[in-house]
Amino acid sequence: MSDTRFMALALSLGRRGQGRVWPNPAVGCVIVQDGRIVGRGWTQDGGRPHAETEALRQAGSAARGATIYVSLEPCAHHGQTPPCAEALVAAGVGRVVIAVADNDARTDGKGIEILRAAGIDVLVGVCEDEARRDHEGFFTKTEVGRPLLTLKLANSFDGRIATGTGESQWITGPDARRLVHGMRARHDAVMVGGGTARKDDPGLTVRDLGIDRQPARVVVSRRLDLPLMGQLARTAKDVPVIICHGPDADHALQQTWRDLGATLLSCAVRGMQLDPGDVLRQLGVHGLTRVFCEGGGALAASLIEADLVDRLIGFTAGVVIGAEGLPGIGAMGLSRLSEAPRYRLVSTQAVGKDVLHVWERG
Amino acid sequence: MSDTRFMALALSLGRRGQGRVWPNPAVGCVIVQDGRIVGRGWTQDGGRPHAETEALRQAGSAARGATIYVSLEPCAHHGQTPPCAEALVAAGVGRVVIAVADNDARTDGKGIEILRAAGIDVLVGVCEDEARRDHEGFFTKTEVGRPLLTLKLANSFDGRIATGTGESQWITGPDARRLVHGMRARHDAVMVGGGTARKDDPGLTVRDLGIDRQPARVVVSRRLDLPLMGQLARTAKDVPVIICHGPDADHALQQTWRDLGATLLSCAVRGMQLDPGDVLRQLGVHGLTRVFCEGGGALAASLIEADLVDRLIGFTAGVVIGAEGLPGIGAMGLSRLSEAPRYRLVSTQAVGKDVLHVWERG
Repeated sequence: MSDTRFMALALSLGRRGQGRVWPNPAVGCVIVQDGRIVGRGWTQDGGRPHAETEALRQAGSAARGATIYVSLEPCAHHGQTPPCAEALVAAGVGRVVIAVADNDARTDGKGIEILRAAGIDVLVGVCEDEARRDHEGFFTKTEVGRPLLTLKLANSFDGRIATGTGESQWITGPDARRLVHGMRARHDAVMVGGGTARKDDPGLTVRDLGIDRQPARVVVSRRLDLPLMGQLARTAKDVPVIICHGPDADHALQQTWRDLGATLLSCAVRGMQLDPGDVLRQLGVHGLTRVFCEGGGALAASLIEADLVDRLIGFTAGVVIGAEGLPGIGAMGLSRLSEAPRYRLVSTQAVGKDVLHVWERG
Repeated sequence: MSDTRFMALALSLGRRGQGRVWPNPAVGCVIVQDGRIVGRGWTQDGGRPHAETEALRQAGSAARGATIYVSLEPCAHHGQTPPCAEALVAAGVGRVVIAVADNDARTDGKGIEILRAAGIDVLVGVCEDEARRDHEGFFTKTEVGRPLLTLKLANSFDGRIATGTGESQWITGPDARRLVHGMRARHDAVMVGGGTARKDDPGLTVRDLGIDRQPARVVVSRRLDLPLMGQLARTAKDVPVIICHGPDADHALQQTWRDLGATLLSCAVRGMQLDPGDVLRQLGVHGLTRVFCEGGGALAASLIEADLVDRLIGFTAGVVIGAEGLPGIGAMGLSRLSEAPRYRLVSTQAVGKDVLHVWERG
């Protein structure tokens, strides 16, 4: 009971780091001495210091004999800093409660071994489901080799994201748009296709939420034919821009984008377009754990077709555009309804004057 | 307080008649003597007897001095039966509580006058908003000269109602489909376009709800080119089929459909298609008060474009079909987003594994 309560606090602290700590997991930690909280910590921006380091620093000598609640197994490998498991042993803690074991090959149970070998009482699995969900991006990367992918589409009632002439501002209302900025902030990167980057010249930043660390911006563009005077080009030195392009993209253009400050990832081509699976693999190698894709229709269709979408978020507005409008999801080459990818409904609610519906892979 | 409670009962009784009593309104009536209910009635199938007649018959001599709760002003005109207002006077009732005045030119306050002239205490406006909503189809017909129109679309996540090859069974799940059958049953008629009638050969009946009175089936087909061996043709003598066609529809075909048992309504043509405004006017003249349109895309687009859709009901399934799929709403010739028709969100909820969202004209 009290274990669950302290772990829930550790989890909520850990979520503060979502979108800010890649390539590391967003972990939370609480240290309790005689029923009193003496230390709290979460993974800091960029992934270091770790949550345990922060909480131990705060607790000081009060950590001796205390119980540690941590939302992920403490790390066991020597990296830029000594492993957290050893730091906990050195601090003389009495008991460690872990929400879920780490599946990273460098830890993978070794953190727990270090603690138990030192005679520390270790309990694993408190609030495990919630922790799995919070760390899903990190786990997807270690297990499948790609980031967790959320696809968000803001549609008209009839599934259009713009008029036939490309007008898209605004289909959904201010409440939905504000919620989207919050969603962006909890992801490592916001991703769009090259068509959207050309047509809308989006900034893809989080606005009006007072955050000091922006998610990276990812553009998927086989030929790198993106506006060199656009918002992304102008701001690439301030907020990371990552461009996934084909090996055949013009070399001078590649150099131009590097000079502008962008990171370039060369991805495999499948048919006429970039292989979406390789795009996500490359983003995973680059360290991203949580990617938030906002379209357009062609990229959305290729990701869904390749079964790479883990969470599907729809906003539906009470406006009707008609069949000349731009579809939110492009052509998928589907012939039978039984082949169509299905998602499981997680929740639906009104957000301002629009409907939000959230789905997960079935 | 108690007035509201009895009126709520009268309203719920009245709703039993929705979809079964056209061209009349679906009225409910409760008779209360000394705080005890002595009579309950609602408009019977086909529109007669009226709710008051039913309730008075049940109450018998207990109606003398009683309070009458009725969801619509009692009628004042001599039709197939004497007016209800006179029947209430003759029964010697003491007080009449009315939810909302009738706007039908034949009554329009005259029912209330008859009662007051007889010295009966009359109160109007208890649960008026709810009553207006229940009687909306009847009011729309008397005020605007057309039935209330609900447009229902069962879409994939991306706004498609079938694959490119026309496969549409099933996009939404069994819970959503059952709910749709309940919605059909509460409307006077179910309406589809000619394309849907040709492609799906739908029965458009209410199934698995044990109802003994089916809504009429309306097909909008300028050229009357509908399958002569299809479900609608085969069953037109059992459940009404109404076909709205153009004046230029083949005369032999018209006669064939009449012989099959269909009712034919000749409607004006505007451009290349039937004028949706005239289609609804003709349906109003025919007596329909509540029409439930289920597509397809071309009919849906023409109704929305003409601003004839009062309620918009969307089911969204967690399946993605892609841009080759058939759009739920066809071309609308819209050039600016500011011209796009907007609807106000009424409610959203999960229905089985799908999302239901209900909208009204803004």
